[in-house]
Amino acid sequence: MITDRERAAFEAGIKLGALYHQFVGTPIARETAAAVEAAIEQAVGLQPYVTGITVRLNRDMMVSNRFGYSELAGKMFDAAITTEVGTAVCRARMRLEDDYPMMEIVEFHETTRDTDH
Amino acid sequence: MITDRERAAFEAGIKLGALYHQFVGTPIARETAAAVEAAIEQAVGLQPYVTGITVRLNRDMMVSNRFGYSELAGKMFDAAITTEVGTAVCRARMRLEDDYPMMEIVEFHETTRDTDH
Amino acid sequence: MITDRERAAFEAGIKLGALYHQFVGTPIARETAAAVEAAIEQAVGLQPYVTGITVRLNRDMMVSNRFGYSELAGKMFDAAITTEVGTAVCRARMRLEDDYPMMEIVEFHETTRDTDH
Amino acid sequence: MITDRERAAFEAGIKLGALYHQFVGTPIARETAAAVEAAIEQAVGLQPYVTGITVRLNRDMMVSNRFGYSELAGKMFDAAITTEVGTAVCRARMRLEDDYPMMEIVEFHETTRDTDH
Repeated sequence: MITDRERAAFEAGIKLGALYHQFVGTPIARETAAAVEAAIEQAVGLQPYVTGITVRLNRDMMVSNRFGYSELAGKMFDAAITTEVGTAVCRARMRLEDDYPMMEIVEFHETTRDTDH
Repeated sequence: MITDRERAAFEAGIKLGALYHQFVGTPIARETAAAVEAAIEQAVGLQPYVTGITVRLNRDMMVSNRFGYSELAGKMFDAAITTEVGTAVCRARMRLEDDYPMMEIVEFHETTRDTDH
Repeated sequence: MITDRERAAFEAGIKLGALYHQFVGTPIARETAAAVEAAIEQAVGLQPYVTGITVRLNRDMMVSNRFGYSELAGKMFDAAITTEVGTAVCRARMRLEDDYPMMEIVEFHETTRDTDH
Repeated sequence: MITDRERAAFEAGIKLGALYHQFVGTPIARETAAAVEAAIEQAVGLQPYVTGITVRLNRDMMVSNRFGYSELAGKMFDAAITTEVGTAVCRARMRLEDDYPMMEIVEFHETTRDTDH
């Protein structure tokens, strides 16, 4: 048997892995970071089981190359995602930890939704 | 000898190839297409020698899968880019042509810039 | 508390989401599919908690465009991954299901490893 | 009028931009670099107007993170491409130059092909 929590964790993992590998390498600078954050959030928000997604990109790491821009790197991500499967809610995140863009489950809880009775 | 026009064409090619392969696969829907267009335009606009970029994604092709979203495909792109190297300006585009996302040089012209006299 | 099974499921999800969005869009044809499969398997095999990965790309879907090649699409994937966290083993997969590249947990089991006694 | 040389330069640019943004972010290590090089070369070799492609990834830059692998970065690329349009041959490359993955046209020449007379 596979639990709702396990499925919700699986779905959260999918989305974090996906957004990382879809967008890493994008040309970026401080003045365009907000547009990239918005695009990522809207893209992930479409995917199944996602009920919340926020993406912040670390502007301090956007050091200009000789042509005046930078490139989206995994280390710039600070992302928080919430997925929901059945009555299980999974909160997970990606953020820099000891120089590695760590993805982790933060916690689970049950939906407080009043189910149809 | 390599001409400015040749360099401008090369730079235009780089950007079209880059944007295609960076963003294809992004989850997308009609209501999020504008955010993705903006992110692509801002990203490409940072790259060297680019003086103009517009990206339109074909909403009609954004047919929902069973989870209610679509995925950015090469065929959805209608992009126009202008690059400038020295006095040469290159206009190029990518758009669907016989079911293939064709990239082409449209034309060259010289900058009309009033040079320092 | 977060269980090993939940963590293993999360890790499996990360890898499937990652490989999908890293490689979709790659130019491909029947005669190059094996090289792309090998590269994907070797890349995923490096990632944390992965103990098994096989990727098969559906050659029948590699229909040539006017230039004689195709492009790696999500629907071509048949991937099986095994992740291991603590004593929990998670097997998951991605494969076409009703025209959608479905990612799913297949099953969990416990490691049969002879633990330190 | 657009010359064959200009078109060949444009095509070379497309392929360098494409391969960079398709593969940056791929998990990599010294022992898997050859498989990734092969996959990239075979992928690019399928694309229109390409008559030669070699990709070398700098193993010295593949420094292990805490999980024992690295990630393909633009700075690791040393790529040489040859495109051919009409009678024009364009050789271009991408390689690290002052800490930037520089893409450049190297030279043009005419095909020595014995044309059908």
